[in-house]
Amino acid sequence: MSLYRLSPFISFLLFLILIMMSFTTHAGYGKYPDAEQSDPRTLGWMQGTPPPADKRIMQPQSNYFSFPKLRWTLCHIRELMPTQLVSRGISAPLPIDYDLDPAINRITFSPTGSSTLMTWADSLSENYTDGILVMHKGKVVYEEYFGCLTQFGKHTAMSMTKSLTGLLAEILIAEGKLDPKAKIATLVPELKDSAFGSATVRQVMDMTTSLAYSENYADPNADIWAYTSAADPLPKAKDYNGPVGYFEYLKTVKQEGKHGEAFGYKTVNTDALGWVISRVTGKKVSDYLSDRIWRRIGAEQNAYMTVDAVGIPFAGGGLTAGLRDLGRIGQLMLDEGQHNGQQIFPESVVTSIQAGGDKTAFAKSGYKDLKGGSYKSMWWIFHNNHGAYAARGVHGQTIYIDPVAEMVIVRFASFPVASNSHIDPTSLPAYQAVADYLLSK
Amino acid sequence: MSLYRLSPFISFLLFLILIMMSFTTHAGYGKYPDAEQSDPRTLGWMQGTPPPADKRIMQPQSNYFSFPKLRWTLCHIRELMPTQLVSRGISAPLPIDYDLDPAINRITFSPTGSSTLMTWADSLSENYTDGILVMHKGKVVYEEYFGCLTQFGKHTAMSMTKSLTGLLAEILIAEGKLDPKAKIATLVPELKDSAFGSATVRQVMDMTTSLAYSENYADPNADIWAYTSAADPLPKAKDYNGPVGYFEYLKTVKQEGKHGEAFGYKTVNTDALGWVISRVTGKKVSDYLSDRIWRRIGAEQNAYMTVDAVGIPFAGGGLTAGLRDLGRIGQLMLDEGQHNGQQIFPESVVTSIQAGGDKTAFAKSGYKDLKGGSYKSMWWIFHNNHGAYAARGVHGQTIYIDPVAEMVIVRFASFPVASNSHIDPTSLPAYQAVADYLLSK
Repeated sequence: MSLYRLSPFISFLLFLILIMMSFTTHAGYGKYPDAEQSDPRTLGWMQGTPPPADKRIMQPQSNYFSFPKLRWTLCHIRELMPTQLVSRGISAPLPIDYDLDPAINRITFSPTGSSTLMTWADSLSENYTDGILVMHKGKVVYEEYFGCLTQFGKHTAMSMTKSLTGLLAEILIAEGKLDPKAKIATLVPELKDSAFGSATVRQVMDMTTSLAYSENYADPNADIWAYTSAADPLPKAKDYNGPVGYFEYLKTVKQEGKHGEAFGYKTVNTDALGWVISRVTGKKVSDYLSDRIWRRIGAEQNAYMTVDAVGIPFAGGGLTAGLRDLGRIGQLMLDEGQHNGQQIFPESVVTSIQAGGDKTAFAKSGYKDLKGGSYKSMWWIFHNNHGAYAARGVHGQTIYIDPVAEMVIVRFASFPVASNSHIDPTSLPAYQAVADYLLSK
Repeated sequence: MSLYRLSPFISFLLFLILIMMSFTTHAGYGKYPDAEQSDPRTLGWMQGTPPPADKRIMQPQSNYFSFPKLRWTLCHIRELMPTQLVSRGISAPLPIDYDLDPAINRITFSPTGSSTLMTWADSLSENYTDGILVMHKGKVVYEEYFGCLTQFGKHTAMSMTKSLTGLLAEILIAEGKLDPKAKIATLVPELKDSAFGSATVRQVMDMTTSLAYSENYADPNADIWAYTSAADPLPKAKDYNGPVGYFEYLKTVKQEGKHGEAFGYKTVNTDALGWVISRVTGKKVSDYLSDRIWRRIGAEQNAYMTVDAVGIPFAGGGLTAGLRDLGRIGQLMLDEGQHNGQQIFPESVVTSIQAGGDKTAFAKSGYKDLKGGSYKSMWWIFHNNHGAYAARGVHGQTIYIDPVAEMVIVRFASFPVASNSHIDPTSLPAYQAVADYLLSK
């Protein structure tokens, strides 16, 4: 696959961008070593002082986002590139209550398109799970760590980062600091002549902008290559004369068609939204995420974000965080902004997201996954009978919120294939089965 | 100064290596803008989204360790290069008690070689202080932040890192896991044919090895250039065929003369000691530092260390940490390993360090600073009437421990010139004056 001959950073962004794309050309994850065989501890990546040559995962030669190396990399991004702190502050964490229920292991479900039964426990290895947390009514009922992750470690959130960026924008809207109808050009004049200039904040938040921007990685002239070159935090080649950093690149994106008509999953929207947030708040997204979320939820770990060469955090996919801290955020969403008796942000933030986006616009995108769903403020809305919605990232990352079952599931994973269309069949029905079980308790 | 045309990473290591060198060729810090003029907030480094071109501090073009950029850089290393976590764990921090005494501001002293009086408050700007903490009998009596630092931020510890590496080795010795008389070759066979192979652990810890290793930066063929090239975490040039990482480089260091006779401040010793620690414990220095110190002292922030291209933390100078957490470590030393009623490591660890190293070997080195002093386990021992000793790093970093006055001072600074010989005249007498004041209270 030619992808693996590309620079690892390009591969990194590429995988993020690929989320939900259904036309991947690989032969299926069946050809990959299974979760146990590909366990990074077993394979010994970066073990030893120094690690032997064949166990090294390095910049840039090692293609660190290729499988099975990515099973190590997803827990160790900061060791490979510059990052920025998302601070929890320095006060005491607020522990989450526990009421562990080992019976969850034995819950069975039928994977989508299959008639055989699979247990919850088996689904974890099937999905190359690195960490999984199930919370019910605010208590942890299930928690396991595998592969590169422990309770003291962190894991890349991939495109779940987008949902937190979208959450920050919803908070600004709810507090009257950001007008969702405002044209981006009025907020970030530098984007006036780009496709984003004529789009509204809401169109960017819901990714219904119409962009002359190709993410077809099979095309060596696709725009993503220029984007990833601009964003790479490592020093540019001497002959590089393109834009430097996310923001300079965004200025070059041109419009193609009419905004507001069809959903199009393009990471550049999130970075444009990140620019808006920074301009409105005067802060980097990483700092504003700390101010509004991380410092207020009793988080037990800091998080961090990758940055471009000029110190701008990657709002579209750069977050790395602890499993239980994402559980805290899922619970905060379930509790409509309430944490420990305090309203951290207005209830309307969550009801706006939960209501979902334009289903017709979503259907027009032609995505095969999440049929009948929508995308709102960078969250995926299932529009199912439980009102479930999710943050999702490639290789199996999710914060899955089921308001009816009062359940939050957080999964970190390192599935061999990026697209969640390969992971959903053994995860979405599993989440539903656990929700039904918890409802019946 | 040709130094500033070199790669910034090379400058980085260079500055670390220059500590205590007295033959710098600059015209004196008098020619530099003062602390207020060079305040990174005033200069606007990396402010704005994105920061304007003339306000960017980037890899590798910006010479980020040149003054006044270093006044920003020393708080932001992780945003410029790969790093590794030194985890505090996830339990609640243990706050330090306060008994602030503003009268300390008015304490006066005569800078070394001067007959005029200077106040403590004035010494802080004179020394380009970024953060200063004075603890007396376990309580914070003075604390201020300037420039790039806040109580929520972190600052590079520079060569104070060495003292923590030395502390870990002393802990291993006290617990019988490391024989100070053992030859390095028996612990790290890879170093058998290097200068370190025939040296004892103690000789490496006290830097009395005799190494054919030049840190003369005026010489383009000096060994430090090969060392820094090996250590640079950024991708190597295509035609690079030298050693990769600290450890591969250490294997190439040759002996010159007899070990154990003279002190020679060479950072490679600390990285060799880091290798020993990793081999004995099976852990990276960053992880062992977390296990033995950071998780046990009620630390309020994580720390982190820079890494080379193969993930080995820079035991000789890579630590970045919060001011109060270094205060906790200083207090732990003052309390001879006791923290919160628990003996975290044997008392003998501190008494061994405090006893000091070979004063004759130290005098032979020809250093003009710290006359009558010694170097033991990577700590500087003053051998004064207060039994004071210190961790020290270029540009003004210190953890200064005065057992008689029951005082710990931690200073982070970004002095324009690396060598502490320029900083000591306005800091060491100031520490003594505060100690005398606290003793008289």
